[in-house]
Amino acid sequence: MTTSTESRLTQQLAFLLEIDKLKQVLRRTLILDGSRQENDAEHSWHVAMLAAILHEHAPDPKPDIARIVRMLLIHDLVEIDAGDTFAYDTRGYQDKEARESAAASRLFGLLPEDQALEWRALWQEFEDGDTPEARYAAALDRLQPMLHNFHTEGHSWKKHGVTHSQAVARLRVLEHAIPPLWTFAMDLLRQSVERGYLKEE
Amino acid sequence: MTTSTESRLTQQLAFLLEIDKLKQVLRRTLILDGSRQENDAEHSWHVAMLAAILHEHAPDPKPDIARIVRMLLIHDLVEIDAGDTFAYDTRGYQDKEARESAAASRLFGLLPEDQALEWRALWQEFEDGDTPEARYAAALDRLQPMLHNFHTEGHSWKKHGVTHSQAVARLRVLEHAIPPLWTFAMDLLRQSVERGYLKEE
Ligand SMILES: [Ca+2]
Repeated sequence: MTTSTESRLTQQLAFLLEIDKLKQVLRRTLILDGSRQENDAEHSWHVAMLAAILHEHAPDPKPDIARIVRMLLIHDLVEIDAGDTFAYDTRGYQDKEARESAAASRLFGLLPEDQALEWRALWQEFEDGDTPEARYAAALDRLQPMLHNFHTEGHSWKKHGVTHSQAVARLRVLEHAIPPLWTFAMDLLRQSVERGYLKEE
Repeated sequence: MTTSTESRLTQQLAFLLEIDKLKQVLRRTLILDGSRQENDAEHSWHVAMLAAILHEHAPDPKPDIARIVRMLLIHDLVEIDAGDTFAYDTRGYQDKEARESAAASRLFGLLPEDQALEWRALWQEFEDGDTPEARYAAALDRLQPMLHNFHTEGHSWKKHGVTHSQAVARLRVLEHAIPPLWTFAMDLLRQSVERGYLKEE
């Protein structure tokens, strides 16, 4: 093994061991049987699966699915340092960007420099939401907790008094990124109001 | 939304909700802080990350990383029905193939037929281990629990009395799939014997 290979491997393994901590970042949503909170690592796996399985529903030209899957695998890594900011927590959102940017520097900075730049740019692309890939990824990142809320009787919606219009606004990115899922989601949100999972106004 | 789109979406969402159960399949390994057992969903996320980050160490011609990542995302899905068979459990291995094949039929069978065939074939490719992609994926699927064992003082090795030669045999696929990682892993296994994590013979 060359010195360069060995030194790259050491950095890469340090990163890969550090990101194990994503398994301990708890989210507001429950897993589907309602037994416990979901963590960010299993959420990242689940949204990557949603992205792969539902790809045909993205409008043509299809966004690059390999890039989307990579993006979703790392989209929440910064929460290892910055924590999970609840989607409807307006106060937590004030310094979210600064906290997450510092986290990205530290975490991706564990990698060899070329990889640090590449993966940090991919995370930034997700955050900026300006490419078709980033928008498709964001749409599924929002659909997944909605599905979990619906199937756990609105657990985190009820707990935090989320309204129908707040949930609609949160899912808006679906409208153009994955049109059939937008229709589907709007139907589920209407049912959620009827069942008392979401507040009417 | 056309009827065909709606019916495909219904099947796809049934599959995507069903696989949430992977979050409840517990493994023998602990997460790195030793606080609890790892589950198959977060393990799948973690090995997909290992695959992406360590890809440069695969010999040329490089195996297709997008295919590998997809493979790793679904490689353990069958354990939703078949359970996790411990790597060193020779009895459990006797009917493992039949149990996992039935599980694959049921789970991938939830998808629209074209996708059911595609994803089941990808899982079968992983199981068969005959392509460079399958071998690279298998190598990381074995490296990850080794790293977890090493960093949790040999937790599941000690619990099950695993020997150095058993662990070496288990990791053998690394030798040709990712040569620098084979060297690295053999070094870690020697250290594991010295530290009393693994039995000598
Ligand atoms: Ca397994």
